[in-house]
Amino acid sequence: MGTAVANPLLRKTMCCVSTSAGKVIGVIRTVCALVLAVASWFCLCVDRPLMAEIAEGDRPFQSLSVDERLEILAQSSLARDDEGKITSANLRGEVDLLWMCIAAFLVFAMQAGFACVEIGFTRAKNAANILMKNLLDFCVGSLLFWAVGFGLMFGKSNGLFGTSHFFFHGEKSYDWGFLIFQTVFCATAATIVSGAVAERIHFHAYLIYSAVISALTYPIFGSWVWGAAYQGTSWLGNMGFHDFAGSTVVHSIGGWAALAGALVLGPRLGKYRAGRIVPIPGHNIPLAGLGVFILWLGWFGFNPGSTLSIGGGHFAYVAVTTNLAASAGAIGALIVSWLWFKKPDPSFALNGALAGLVAITAGCDVIPASYSVLTGAVAGGLVVISAVLLDRAGLDDPVGAVSVHGVCGAWGTLAVGLFATEGGLLTTGEVHSLLVQLLGILVAFLWSFLTSLALFLGIKYTVGLRVDRETELRGLDITEHGLFAYPEQFVIETGPTEVVGNLGK
Amino acid sequence: MGTAVANPLLRKTMCCVSTSAGKVIGVIRTVCALVLAVASWFCLCVDRPLMAEIAEGDRPFQSLSVDERLEILAQSSLARDDEGKITSANLRGEVDLLWMCIAAFLVFAMQAGFACVEIGFTRAKNAANILMKNLLDFCVGSLLFWAVGFGLMFGKSNGLFGTSHFFFHGEKSYDWGFLIFQTVFCATAATIVSGAVAERIHFHAYLIYSAVISALTYPIFGSWVWGAAYQGTSWLGNMGFHDFAGSTVVHSIGGWAALAGALVLGPRLGKYRAGRIVPIPGHNIPLAGLGVFILWLGWFGFNPGSTLSIGGGHFAYVAVTTNLAASAGAIGALIVSWLWFKKPDPSFALNGALAGLVAITAGCDVIPASYSVLTGAVAGGLVVISAVLLDRAGLDDPVGAVSVHGVCGAWGTLAVGLFATEGGLLTTGEVHSLLVQLLGILVAFLWSFLTSLALFLGIKYTVGLRVDRETELRGLDITEHGLFAYPEQFVIETGPTEVVGNLGK
Amino acid sequence: MGTAVANPLLRKTMCCVSTSAGKVIGVIRTVCALVLAVASWFCLCVDRPLMAEIAEGDRPFQSLSVDERLEILAQSSLARDDEGKITSANLRGEVDLLWMCIAAFLVFAMQAGFACVEIGFTRAKNAANILMKNLLDFCVGSLLFWAVGFGLMFGKSNGLFGTSHFFFHGEKSYDWGFLIFQTVFCATAATIVSGAVAERIHFHAYLIYSAVISALTYPIFGSWVWGAAYQGTSWLGNMGFHDFAGSTVVHSIGGWAALAGALVLGPRLGKYRAGRIVPIPGHNIPLAGLGVFILWLGWFGFNPGSTLSIGGGHFAYVAVTTNLAASAGAIGALIVSWLWFKKPDPSFALNGALAGLVAITAGCDVIPASYSVLTGAVAGGLVVISAVLLDRAGLDDPVGAVSVHGVCGAWGTLAVGLFATEGGLLTTGEVHSLLVQLLGILVAFLWSFLTSLALFLGIKYTVGLRVDRETELRGLDITEHGLFAYPEQFVIETGPTEVVGNLGK
Repeated sequence: MGTAVANPLLRKTMCCVSTSAGKVIGVIRTVCALVLAVASWFCLCVDRPLMAEIAEGDRPFQSLSVDERLEILAQSSLARDDEGKITSANLRGEVDLLWMCIAAFLVFAMQAGFACVEIGFTRAKNAANILMKNLLDFCVGSLLFWAVGFGLMFGKSNGLFGTSHFFFHGEKSYDWGFLIFQTVFCATAATIVSGAVAERIHFHAYLIYSAVISALTYPIFGSWVWGAAYQGTSWLGNMGFHDFAGSTVVHSIGGWAALAGALVLGPRLGKYRAGRIVPIPGHNIPLAGLGVFILWLGWFGFNPGSTLSIGGGHFAYVAVTTNLAASAGAIGALIVSWLWFKKPDPSFALNGALAGLVAITAGCDVIPASYSVLTGAVAGGLVVISAVLLDRAGLDDPVGAVSVHGVCGAWGTLAVGLFATEGGLLTTGEVHSLLVQLLGILVAFLWSFLTSLALFLGIKYTVGLRVDRETELRGLDITEHGLFAYPEQFVIETGPTEVVGNLGK
Repeated sequence: MGTAVANPLLRKTMCCVSTSAGKVIGVIRTVCALVLAVASWFCLCVDRPLMAEIAEGDRPFQSLSVDERLEILAQSSLARDDEGKITSANLRGEVDLLWMCIAAFLVFAMQAGFACVEIGFTRAKNAANILMKNLLDFCVGSLLFWAVGFGLMFGKSNGLFGTSHFFFHGEKSYDWGFLIFQTVFCATAATIVSGAVAERIHFHAYLIYSAVISALTYPIFGSWVWGAAYQGTSWLGNMGFHDFAGSTVVHSIGGWAALAGALVLGPRLGKYRAGRIVPIPGHNIPLAGLGVFILWLGWFGFNPGSTLSIGGGHFAYVAVTTNLAASAGAIGALIVSWLWFKKPDPSFALNGALAGLVAITAGCDVIPASYSVLTGAVAGGLVVISAVLLDRAGLDDPVGAVSVHGVCGAWGTLAVGLFATEGGLLTTGEVHSLLVQLLGILVAFLWSFLTSLALFLGIKYTVGLRVDRETELRGLDITEHGLFAYPEQFVIETGPTEVVGNLGK
Repeated sequence: MGTAVANPLLRKTMCCVSTSAGKVIGVIRTVCALVLAVASWFCLCVDRPLMAEIAEGDRPFQSLSVDERLEILAQSSLARDDEGKITSANLRGEVDLLWMCIAAFLVFAMQAGFACVEIGFTRAKNAANILMKNLLDFCVGSLLFWAVGFGLMFGKSNGLFGTSHFFFHGEKSYDWGFLIFQTVFCATAATIVSGAVAERIHFHAYLIYSAVISALTYPIFGSWVWGAAYQGTSWLGNMGFHDFAGSTVVHSIGGWAALAGALVLGPRLGKYRAGRIVPIPGHNIPLAGLGVFILWLGWFGFNPGSTLSIGGGHFAYVAVTTNLAASAGAIGALIVSWLWFKKPDPSFALNGALAGLVAITAGCDVIPASYSVLTGAVAGGLVVISAVLLDRAGLDDPVGAVSVHGVCGAWGTLAVGLFATEGGLLTTGEVHSLLVQLLGILVAFLWSFLTSLALFLGIKYTVGLRVDRETELRGLDITEHGLFAYPEQFVIETGPTEVVGNLGK
């Protein structure tokens, strides 16, 4: 996605051969059209035509006259489909578009993954609330990105952001495919935050936040790096900032917004008690694990899909580096947590895999396979250290979103400057790329953290950000949404059992 | 899927050029074949041939003779693969088929989504039973659609239904791809019902129902709309009835059958008590939420895949309208439920997303993006109103299947007549399309509701439809299947704890 | 995957036409290159060129001179993309590669399916441990297969195994795609075992096992059957042993290793008590059911993807036989269990679907559709009988892995010898294929069972294999990993409730 690969084939095939002879043959055009029409009608009636004979190997191609051979080749290469276009020139573009859409569908699946991870890593009394936040930020984000965000990110730019293509209407199929692909990326950035602010934020406050990040925060920064992939300009991208699929553009932007949200909200009740840190374990580790597998699957759309084209088959290489980094991330986190806490911790191993995925996202196209293992392993270790330090510093991030997406997103962006085949400090000794990567990391932090801080503070002092003590103790499900996520287990403890036909009875 | 796009490239390329000279060159055929064989053998031994030089840019194409250029083009365009066919003409067909199959796989995933939604929205004591119904209706449906349904739907028609291609055997790969694609659509219609009849229907009765809908109800109606996509005729389709991916053909057919089933079965015990409606909450809202995400993902195969071809890349547009309508559906349902019940209800938001998806299914190819938002939003509101009204009217539909699939399927089919770019009442002022859509909606209702009513009544008065009171109270899992879905939680309450190595012990 | 289809188009187009004239035109090459450069620059500046007019149907192709027509065809067929290669020759290869990668992503999803099935079919106190084993065997396997396994399986062979390509570095995109595809197959074999050894094996012992099977056991046997698909040799494959997607290579290898593991470990505490077999039910049947659906979905990558190419669209046929066999498997198991135990058992129906999938994997490309139903149905019955008999024989296999993957893998491999269109005993009367299949089954059993037996015994008598009694009773989650999978439910029973903000409170 870093560079606008789009559709080189179409561009090139469509633009050649002088048209100087164009006008003189205008006269014979009508005649030829009539002849062609008759010929076409005739062809449809003829059984087993020349083409079929060739196809079945009955008539050697070489035995035909030049005109016959040209005709066959023309039918094969220039065949028209229902849309009246030349297929052999379009087919590549169509397959590129298909790949873009399939990749978008895989990235969509990450929404399910995020929901599972965040629900699993928090408490049962808030499960439905977290689900709702994950569902609604995607819905709100989809509509607002279509209406506003896409235009800001990819419209014709005023230098700072795009100013066209609001309420997006595509002219070509490619445009629609590009929209759906970019929409699911935007939604990924938005949904990262819900984990960090879980179990204590008002539902309506979260909706406001998710509208702003989808419509403004993400698209404007995105335009600085990827805007040129459509009709915008990208000042960071033009400087050489390399973020192939969004370690910074998607994950750090989301991660630093999560940091702002968690800071403004403060820790959950009971998390810090009498100077001690009291762990609040997630209520369903298998669900969180399923979520990590789904996210990993979705990342095969996120990273390989960011090639935007099947040209050269580069997506296959990207799939390999993505998979190696994720594997190394889980193992790295496992080892660090095993050494540090004497137990191989499942939460950290799961987050380690995500950390590896986030980290390789920026450089999955340019980092050698062996260095992708290193990038992932470092991210895995980093996520454990970061999560523990933030916890000790008093930042309560229930699912570790800041560490996974913010810190490891920054690390992965930096890794491009260290390990990239071209321009990496360790691979080529050049330092320029590393400095540009650092600049991009810094700009992303300042932009996302400061605007999100202002936003969360603004919400806090207007419509209210955090639920009251009673609501938080009872859980957000029953108080904000009027139901329990697992009513049979809850009602047994607290309510009239005849309401639900309950356990085994 | 509305129109048989199938394989225009193949059709056209295969049928041109007069064969009048075909016989005279029969004599030289043998000679040429021999020459070719020798040449091929020779070619395999030569290093770095002309083609490779061209490929690597060493020899300009224009420097060659006409014969050489023709030869190169022929090798590029007419290259043969192992199957002995001409590749450049076939490649588009192969990619179309690949897309059809990948879409089918996505639609298959909807089975998992339905299972999660239905299990999550019902009680724990029936969870394994619902899972079994979802699994078995797909298995029974797959076999019966292959054996009977496909022939009724797509075989050569007697005017009312198809009468060939039973125990389907495909001649070309395309046929097999078409079969698997249609199979998963059939299974979707069948599985819709299981939610509405959940928690009180005999397992064997459900198996009988699912056999009939897969083998008869769905295929026969389907032939009226989509039969012409293969070898059948489609009287409704011929009248201009537009149902691109099945708001009516799949979802309403399933939804009205669900209505019949729920009516004949009557409400679950305890649902209506002393004149009051007692809500029976689902036991696992996060699981239902995961199911909705999976269904949404599957819909990216359901709708965009119904293009059946990558031609023109139209699938990308369909993906966008599908996504917008789903998002608007969830938001619409959220707003209506928030205003009505003062709480943003998760069950309704989830069903709202499904309602939006069901509604856009008919017109996802022809409804403008902005109207797709409207179509989805209306569906979201409609599903809340419909579910509440049906509930008050005494129809106990545990998961809201009638409202989501029946009502919103009808609304979406109607929306084509209102909003379609061509022929929509609001977009063009024409009323004809709207009337045809209404006719189709009516025919679908009468066909599916009446035949299903007869079927469920027939089952009721022969092998029995509803479980007895004791079974229903204890739950269908232990009574019909001999196990608990969550034995550790159940056995603790009721049985000998040493049988299972139970909680934390 | 049985045969190396790879890329026939590229191979053939790249190797033809004599190069005898190659040297004489070297002189004019430089001149032409200059002319071309100027022409290209000129073309980019010309609006609406000939090609576009053709595309839009304004100028009939036939009205042009031979040179013009050749030029247009050349631009269409030989267009270069950014990588400087000829696209029409490469496009097919790129789509093949895309399909291979998408299939690999689907197969990756099977990891999530295995995790769900294994967690659901075992007890809550070991859920996080089983999740960790599923996650880590994939991570360890991915890294080791890249580093060692791929080279042993597909490197240049010494007759027994490959000896090149360690720490794999691909030269072409195809190589990387082939690596990721083979990696997920290797991981499937490895993860099969975790279910059979669940609830009683040390975590570190399992890591050692999974390293060995990924790096040695699977790749070496794999090279005997599939090595020739890359750069190895395949003595079993050369004999005509047909295992299209791995009933034996993947599933039986995993299944027989599972047998060895379960044998060496012995049954779980409480499974056999006072001469009675005490069933230990899984704690979450819906989760297991979701896992089966995910596995089924993944199999659409596993089997159809093993075509490795879209050539001829054969993947569509494979998808149909796969789906029919799975459906028949579930129904077969349901019927057998219903007749035998008087109840339609969910566990067996779920395992029956998997059994059908495992069984058809070897012959999904060559077994007729009707016989695929038979293959699946027999597998479904077989898995019930095998699971019960093994249970009675004292082998405690918590999830039935040995029966599903070992026994039904062998059955499916045998079914090729019985039902294959070419060479099947029942279809053609020939016995040779059947004997070769039997040989392959036997070799796989001996190799996998004996090496795994040695491995598990080796682990047992060195670092220790089985956890102690206290650990097993308390569950592996809290003892080996320091947390509970569902802490709210566990802590209520056993610990200080104020630590977690618990149920409804």
